[in-house]
Amino acid sequence: MVMAAPLAVSLGDPAGIAPELIAEAWAQREIAGLAPFFVVGGASVVTAAAQTRGLSVPIIPITAPDEASAAFSSGLPVLGDRDCTPSFGTPDRNGAELTLHSLTLAAALALAGDAGAIVTGPIAKSRLATVGFTQPGQTEFVADACGLPHEDAVMMLAGPSLRTVPLTVHEPLSAVPGLITRDLIEHKARIVASALARDFGLSKPRLAVTGLNPHAGEDGRMGREDSDIIAPAIAALQAQGIAATGPHPADALFAAHERDRYDVALCMYHDQALIPIKTLDFDQGVNVTLGLPIVRTSPDHGTAFPIAGKNVASPGAMIAAIRMAGECAARRTAA
Amino acid sequence: MVMAAPLAVSLGDPAGIAPELIAEAWAQREIAGLAPFFVVGGASVVTAAAQTRGLSVPIIPITAPDEASAAFSSGLPVLGDRDCTPSFGTPDRNGAELTLHSLTLAAALALAGDAGAIVTGPIAKSRLATVGFTQPGQTEFVADACGLPHEDAVMMLAGPSLRTVPLTVHEPLSAVPGLITRDLIEHKARIVASALARDFGLSKPRLAVTGLNPHAGEDGRMGREDSDIIAPAIAALQAQGIAATGPHPADALFAAHERDRYDVALCMYHDQALIPIKTLDFDQGVNVTLGLPIVRTSPDHGTAFPIAGKNVASPGAMIAAIRMAGECAARRTAA
Repeated sequence: MVMAAPLAVSLGDPAGIAPELIAEAWAQREIAGLAPFFVVGGASVVTAAAQTRGLSVPIIPITAPDEASAAFSSGLPVLGDRDCTPSFGTPDRNGAELTLHSLTLAAALALAGDAGAIVTGPIAKSRLATVGFTQPGQTEFVADACGLPHEDAVMMLAGPSLRTVPLTVHEPLSAVPGLITRDLIEHKARIVASALARDFGLSKPRLAVTGLNPHAGEDGRMGREDSDIIAPAIAALQAQGIAATGPHPADALFAAHERDRYDVALCMYHDQALIPIKTLDFDQGVNVTLGLPIVRTSPDHGTAFPIAGKNVASPGAMIAAIRMAGECAARRTAA
Repeated sequence: MVMAAPLAVSLGDPAGIAPELIAEAWAQREIAGLAPFFVVGGASVVTAAAQTRGLSVPIIPITAPDEASAAFSSGLPVLGDRDCTPSFGTPDRNGAELTLHSLTLAAALALAGDAGAIVTGPIAKSRLATVGFTQPGQTEFVADACGLPHEDAVMMLAGPSLRTVPLTVHEPLSAVPGLITRDLIEHKARIVASALARDFGLSKPRLAVTGLNPHAGEDGRMGREDSDIIAPAIAALQAQGIAATGPHPADALFAAHERDRYDVALCMYHDQALIPIKTLDFDQGVNVTLGLPIVRTSPDHGTAFPIAGKNVASPGAMIAAIRMAGECAARRTAA
């Protein structure tokens, strides 16, 4: 079997918690079973971040991704010499420029096949916008880097208990009912079904689709979208051979005894998908982008500037994101 | 200290799971620490239901509530001789008439002070409508029985992990943004704060109010209701001495480390409030009506006709509802 290329980890905002969590992930690489990875830039930031957590993390500078796997057992490989002065909790423009460089190069390396996947550290969108980042988020940035329309990049949240996909994401709640169309549901469901087979080893993934309204509309008594839009979309997906069920009342769908009955829940809007995953798996949620030619994961948390450098941030999600990226990359390499 | 009057349990639909769960609750009365209760009607139904679960539950007919407490240790007191033929899983008109009788009399006894509280078994609303039940649900029925407008009866879901209040309930999602007003939030928040003090012993309850939009609108970038309506309502509540906070992004509010920071979450709509409680406390959720002159609780599940009489329904929520009713009634009696 061919080994997957090493994973490229983008630094995220260097003033946030990503550098310390990357250092922590390297320190736990053996017990966590992580595939070899390297960071793009920020050697002095990661070194300082490791110190804030009392970790000894030797930095191994590399000039090309293919040096990473050999170096990984003895230190954390850092690609290139782009860097900035550590300033945990206090983001600045130099940090924003390093963030964007790290993300851009990591995505390019993954697209070229020199990295097996990209794991993106959290960014501060409003700060990145001042140095030329034009997308609403990293998901769309990576879609652009791959030359794909944004609607082909589908966000999935994955934790130990549950996987969910919000079919609409950062939209005002009042806009959501108008955005729910048969096309949207069918298009994203097909991407999800295909990606769970290719990247997650589920040959016929079971998709549970929520209703939009309370009790999935209760036969139209509380809204008609469930019966008029969502149900026909599910029927069409079934006719295409996809194991989709629903519309399910969303309130009961995430109870323990229900979660065994599906592999992923397709939800109509942000909070419907994010509430259950954050309620159950707060510190271990991974944001994975489905439908791309590259594998991309990210810890499902933000920069957390107020706690950066204080040795309190939980590394669970970063470790889970790196582990998942390695597993997905290995499946693609083996295929 | 004066003992609270015994609790009146309404039968719910006799073809559903309520009768067997009432029998189960009586069988577990000592280990569960339940206050004395009686059922209104349905002696033969409860007897048959107990048999389906292999329980020996002696029925003690009573003709007035004040006979219940003495009888409770040796059998399950059943008030009156209204009854019907057991037909688990197959609801019929006789059962609907018994359901409505049981609910009506139980509420009247609580209002008269002859019962310390009412615990309502689940009903089939569409069936009850055929025998004269005109309200959308039992919450509104009980409000009417107390002579109060429906908006004064506030539904709270309570489990071992969490309490939540949906400020709007059985509304299409598209109607929700238009229903969220400062008046609604302030009116219901005041009822919740007062009821948690009176019935739950929390002298200054902490109310966490959610946002309507993703990330509570993120400073207006994803909707303006959070900043224009919800935030001013919270400020007004604080000025009235109520410990309200928010608007909080709903997705993160129910994580374990957040739940310690408030006593109840006030949510904008059905699924926002019901997803976390059913995800965490599926089998133990209690629906309690705040703001009434009487104490009313109910297990947070339906009739479950398909599993009635099959000895599979979990009694956790019914037992929790009876326990909570007893605790609230005792606090009112002691006050």
